[in-house]
Amino acid sequence: MTTPVTPGAAEAARLTPAAARALFRAGLSTATAGWSRGFAQANVLIVPQSQAFDVLLFAQRNPKSCPLLGVLEAGQTASELLAGGDIRTDVPKYVVYEDGVPTAETTDITGWWRDDLVTFIIGCSFTFESALMDAGIRIAHIDQGVNVPMYKTSIRSTSAGRLSGPTVVSMRPIPASQVSDAVRITSRYPAVHGAPVHVGNPADIGIEDLGRPDFGDAVEIPEGHLPVFWACGVTPQAAVMESRPALAIGHAPGYMLIADARDVDYQVP
Amino acid sequence: MTTPVTPGAAEAARLTPAAARALFRAGLSTATAGWSRGFAQANVLIVPQSQAFDVLLFAQRNPKSCPLLGVLEAGQTASELLAGGDIRTDVPKYVVYEDGVPTAETTDITGWWRDDLVTFIIGCSFTFESALMDAGIRIAHIDQGVNVPMYKTSIRSTSAGRLSGPTVVSMRPIPASQVSDAVRITSRYPAVHGAPVHVGNPADIGIEDLGRPDFGDAVEIPEGHLPVFWACGVTPQAAVMESRPALAIGHAPGYMLIADARDVDYQVP
Repeated sequence: MTTPVTPGAAEAARLTPAAARALFRAGLSTATAGWSRGFAQANVLIVPQSQAFDVLLFAQRNPKSCPLLGVLEAGQTASELLAGGDIRTDVPKYVVYEDGVPTAETTDITGWWRDDLVTFIIGCSFTFESALMDAGIRIAHIDQGVNVPMYKTSIRSTSAGRLSGPTVVSMRPIPASQVSDAVRITSRYPAVHGAPVHVGNPADIGIEDLGRPDFGDAVEIPEGHLPVFWACGVTPQAAVMESRPALAIGHAPGYMLIADARDVDYQVP
Repeated sequence: MTTPVTPGAAEAARLTPAAARALFRAGLSTATAGWSRGFAQANVLIVPQSQAFDVLLFAQRNPKSCPLLGVLEAGQTASELLAGGDIRTDVPKYVVYEDGVPTAETTDITGWWRDDLVTFIIGCSFTFESALMDAGIRIAHIDQGVNVPMYKTSIRSTSAGRLSGPTVVSMRPIPASQVSDAVRITSRYPAVHGAPVHVGNPADIGIEDLGRPDFGDAVEIPEGHLPVFWACGVTPQAAVMESRPALAIGHAPGYMLIADARDVDYQVP
């Protein structure tokens, strides 16, 4: 099988979710910020049924970092969020964890699939980036052609069963004059992390060096911009790994599931 | 032990949640509409851990009828929602179901308690009745001194695992001129069922006779009033019973847990 060629940024932005997923299913692996503009992107976390109650309760107790868009019950591989697709092949990159340790990065988890695996589809802040750009707010990681920077913070999640861990955030530099616009716009998307959890000094939330993100890539912070932090759907993945389950599978941070839902479907008045 | 005397309506309305729960813990058993005005009331559903994922997923998929206020993990009997209390004694009446069949009504479930029981605390529309009354909307079942009427409808819930069933609604007659106020006010309480699911003709949602509710008591519908229907937290109880678990325990409809949270805590702008 020949791996498809990565489309340019303008072409990727115009792809339908189904067309994007078809490329990933054929083996293309790329970070998805800016892809399929106007459609929702999502985090994916797959765990055995024995862990599933804890994950669902963790999401219920941490709605800001873990807004659930959908749950595929044990053994289900299809969902109306990825019509005609398959959750085992349609994410551009997966990380397989065994006993909490990453043991493989892959574009196809069919070989790991079991009938007791439950899939959680969790909102992603990429979803509201279209709305920010429509308001004239530039997105640094898209402009710079890299993955969004993500950081573990000193903000603890509310624990659930065996699960506890740090809140993970994504960061976007925003000009001081546009911070209130960014807050106002993203607060209308509570299902995809909503308003920022922090604006300004990274040390306040335990981030030592913005130049060294825990996931994704560093971005330059232009003069006159403030770092603005949103809760990130990698949070439950971090908590699950700390509990060291025999098997868990997540998307690779920034390599998201592109869903059929429109971003406006998750907008409140 | 002497059972406490039932307080009059005015006194019940002024009781703190802790004082109300102390009466129930001492054996008082009464429907709670109008009690502890200004505080949240809640549905309770208790199931073994083996059923808990299905119940939590059912709540996630049916947020209108099953808005979760809290979950007590396996074996937990205390919660900040009932400070100083005990979930086994603080509800004014419980129904115990074995194999899906009610086998006992009781004010104390200590004898049935097991360390694998998980408790779901689910929002109740009694919570927004204070706000309706503050706006000059009379609540028929409070005026008439009876339990709220509840009905099974033809609106199916979204199923989850082994759980499926009808949406249960509560009904309040509202004067035609105040229907839009009732919609506007209750829509600000999404965590306690929010806006009505139906206004007017009961036959449209499969209710044959308003005079014969499935739970609670019938109320008179005065001339010029429309029946208005809100999703009800008895819905998950109805679904769990259809799945016939070996053991499940719910509150008796209308006999609610009175929580320490204020009703305004669940109000959105």
